[in-house]
Amino acid sequence: MANFKGHVLPGSFFILFGLWWSVKYSLKHISRTPKKNSHVQTNFKHVEIIEGAVKVVFTLVGILGEQFVPDGPHLYLYRGQPRSWVKLMNWQHSTMYLFFLISGAVDIITYSTTLMPVGMDRFMLGMALYVEGLLFQYHVSLRPMLDQHIHTMLLMAIYPSVATCIIQVFVHENMILDFFSACLALLQGTWFWQIGFVLYPPWGGPEWDLNDHSNLMFITMCFCWHFALAILITAVNYTLNKRTCEGIQETLLPLVVVQR
Amino acid sequence: MANFKGHVLPGSFFILFGLWWSVKYSLKHISRTPKKNSHVQTNFKHVEIIEGAVKVVFTLVGILGEQFVPDGPHLYLYRGQPRSWVKLMNWQHSTMYLFFLISGAVDIITYSTTLMPVGMDRFMLGMALYVEGLLFQYHVSLRPMLDQHIHTMLLMAIYPSVATCIIQVFVHENMILDFFSACLALLQGTWFWQIGFVLYPPWGGPEWDLNDHSNLMFITMCFCWHFALAILITAVNYTLNKRTCEGIQETLLPLVVVQR
Amino acid sequence: MANFKGHVLPGSFFILFGLWWSVKYSLKHISRTPKKNSHVQTNFKHVEIIEGAVKVVFTLVGILGEQFVPDGPHLYLYRGQPRSWVKLMNWQHSTMYLFFLISGAVDIITYSTTLMPVGMDRFMLGMALYVEGLLFQYHVSLRPMLDQHIHTMLLMAIYPSVATCIIQVFVHENMILDFFSACLALLQGTWFWQIGFVLYPPWGGPEWDLNDHSNLMFITMCFCWHFALAILITAVNYTLNKRTCEGIQETLLPLVVVQR
Amino acid sequence: MANFKGHVLPGSFFILFGLWWSVKYSLKHISRTPKKNSHVQTNFKHVEIIEGAVKVVFTLVGILGEQFVPDGPHLYLYRGQPRSWVKLMNWQHSTMYLFFLISGAVDIITYSTTLMPVGMDRFMLGMALYVEGLLFQYHVSLRPMLDQHIHTMLLMAIYPSVATCIIQVFVHENMILDFFSACLALLQGTWFWQIGFVLYPPWGGPEWDLNDHSNLMFITMCFCWHFALAILITAVNYTLNKRTCEGIQETLLPLVVVQR
Repeated sequence: MANFKGHVLPGSFFILFGLWWSVKYSLKHISRTPKKNSHVQTNFKHVEIIEGAVKVVFTLVGILGEQFVPDGPHLYLYRGQPRSWVKLMNWQHSTMYLFFLISGAVDIITYSTTLMPVGMDRFMLGMALYVEGLLFQYHVSLRPMLDQHIHTMLLMAIYPSVATCIIQVFVHENMILDFFSACLALLQGTWFWQIGFVLYPPWGGPEWDLNDHSNLMFITMCFCWHFALAILITAVNYTLNKRTCEGIQETLLPLVVVQR
Repeated sequence: MANFKGHVLPGSFFILFGLWWSVKYSLKHISRTPKKNSHVQTNFKHVEIIEGAVKVVFTLVGILGEQFVPDGPHLYLYRGQPRSWVKLMNWQHSTMYLFFLISGAVDIITYSTTLMPVGMDRFMLGMALYVEGLLFQYHVSLRPMLDQHIHTMLLMAIYPSVATCIIQVFVHENMILDFFSACLALLQGTWFWQIGFVLYPPWGGPEWDLNDHSNLMFITMCFCWHFALAILITAVNYTLNKRTCEGIQETLLPLVVVQR
Repeated sequence: MANFKGHVLPGSFFILFGLWWSVKYSLKHISRTPKKNSHVQTNFKHVEIIEGAVKVVFTLVGILGEQFVPDGPHLYLYRGQPRSWVKLMNWQHSTMYLFFLISGAVDIITYSTTLMPVGMDRFMLGMALYVEGLLFQYHVSLRPMLDQHIHTMLLMAIYPSVATCIIQVFVHENMILDFFSACLALLQGTWFWQIGFVLYPPWGGPEWDLNDHSNLMFITMCFCWHFALAILITAVNYTLNKRTCEGIQETLLPLVVVQR
Repeated sequence: MANFKGHVLPGSFFILFGLWWSVKYSLKHISRTPKKNSHVQTNFKHVEIIEGAVKVVFTLVGILGEQFVPDGPHLYLYRGQPRSWVKLMNWQHSTMYLFFLISGAVDIITYSTTLMPVGMDRFMLGMALYVEGLLFQYHVSLRPMLDQHIHTMLLMAIYPSVATCIIQVFVHENMILDFFSACLALLQGTWFWQIGFVLYPPWGGPEWDLNDHSNLMFITMCFCWHFALAILITAVNYTLNKRTCEGIQETLLPLVVVQR
């Protein structure tokens, strides 16, 4: 997948999840302000289970795709004499998908049964992100300077996500952590797009000099701009949701009170 | 801004904020000792909002200055054939200002509305400092040893500030953390001055040998002295405020009691 | 012990302890769900003391074995003229065993007396694992790339274990941390086996090229698979125990109630 | 002070403090078990103040000694044409002493006034240790391998001390942390002695080959032995104190009860 599409695709997934999380957490925190509503709580459980199921389906498709595309490994790991690894890239991507699949499965189990405590879902998501980071880290040694640097920046979105998830195991329902994780997902997503545009310019265009130090300085700065953008999107999303919900609540609150 | 003035200016800002914070936190913690006074709490809210507004104004001026000084980039990012980046330094400084601007805006929103929980202001300040650190880190690779080292020391003031801010998201109203953050701002400020004096001696004077190991050892030690000075200033400031406030309280306490 | 057996033996111990912990913690957390049963609590104390005693015996045997095998150092540390170290490897392994011995002794003291607070056992286990990691870290510098990398992966199982133990000093009875530590023990165990198979193929077979970058990429990925396996084993173990216990409880609960 | 005595002297101080802390914390935690005794609490306050005063005196003597020994810098920082630093080593040691002096002063202020919250003393001790670590870190670059490694091991005693102190700012009265900090002081002390014996063998004896890898492996292991020794001393100290106190309490408890 060392091409433009191969970076845009995962990028789009992370952007989708980032957007979805910024909506979900907005609604969650807005719904908590008035008296604790166990009805709403149940609804969020359903939402989490559906999210887990979506993750499982997407990653399953991803694994099958990576394995059985025409030039994929078709489940062969090594081949030939002397033995050589078959399509290690596809295997690495399959491994990443596998951990997000486990994370999805744990989401479902955590919220549909009492087997696991709340927090296990965040922990497993942290582990999936950690595996992603670990594989990327040893993915790019031996490459040109800018290529390494642009992937290091990716790790700077991934590892804070891991840290956030692990803190969330112990600190539940913290609005700041929730929005930060949504924000980092957006950042990771848009940064995947950026990597695609820098390393594999889609419309021809001038090639980037991968060993120019001023390019490295620009990329570092560009990463900060993406972060600012991710913050902006999350903030706007939250404000819009807040406005909409307050409108709805003003209309519905009397009904809810009556219902009780 | 690779000159004496370019280091003295940001240094002075950090010193100003450090001094201001050491006063603010002194008053905050002194005012908390007698019964919780909601009137005082409101006043601190106003103070935080004003602080945020000052940050927004200063950084806005900073961004415009960096962009539109005679030899600035005037919002051009690249230029020429083959394309080359225009004044990356100014763009980097603009980016740093941008995040402190966001931090100022979040301060205002946190304390003037109920949209965000307390702690969001500290979190965003932490992010702004982190971005500053990140940009400095890749700023100075490829420079002479002492130049790199003296900027590494700067990071040793910045990253602990980031850590302090992130802990403050979870631990509110901790006097030790508050004073430490004031202290680190002072340290960062005076260290900027030190960098200016070492790399761009303002009154001529003997040049520093940037590759001499004993200079490196001196600079490390010098950083510790700046830290000791920052601790001293914070401590003196706190003691003076304490004295003054106790004087005032002795005079005003009867009045306050009567008023109730 | 730089041979296949020398890696399989410690690996088996860690697998055994990993399996045992996943059973122990399953039972512990299942037994806690119904009303707090002080009778069960006492039993767990006995279990911890026995576990400590087993550790002490195993590690004592280990130390004696390392020292007094025919080609061991027989307690000589240096020898000859000029002086040279005698069998440093065996001494290093003895040192590792020593700390796990101390950890076992602390387990016994923590749970059989009131001298030490609960948490001291976890702390000492963390220290033992840290010493293991520290010794491994300086064990392998100067070796070929893949050899270093495969041992770095080992550290990636050891250091998170250390971190988990230290968190457990402050956060007791957290199901997620308990299972994670069991999981990491399993991971460390199976990874020891993997190291044995890669560096000292037991049945001849093709040698691994220790400087091939694609081997390094495979090993990183393989480590993730071991982690997935460890998660699976822990999860299955827990589910089986849950099922069994619920069966027993349904049968025994009336009896327990009567007994009171 | 690059000689045997220069390492044995600070080593002895750390050993003394380590022993004293292991006694102090033993008594503190033993005295807390029976009903909270405010009389005992006051006594501990006095003890802390005395400890702070001792620190201040010792470090003041240290600073004056480093400056005014016959071959000291006598407060001159640079000299000559071209300018060169005067006795940077002595200045560095003075700086280390300075921070422990500040730490001692903060101890006194924390426990004798209500200016600062409890925890400030631990925080300042952490800063003093951090400064010590920072100065040692840049002390030894450019030296032979074993020299660097043996000082790196020193940092492995110092930085965990810093971490422990910072955790103690938030977690008071934790027996495990208290004993760990005593233990690390002992470790640092005995390790200073070890450095003296390795780099400056006092009774002649065979020189160490500073570039032999097996020496590096031995030193790493030796550090672990020092750690085990420090744990043993702390444990024995605690047990002895416990025994003694229980004997005294059995004799005195009736009297105390009567007194009330």
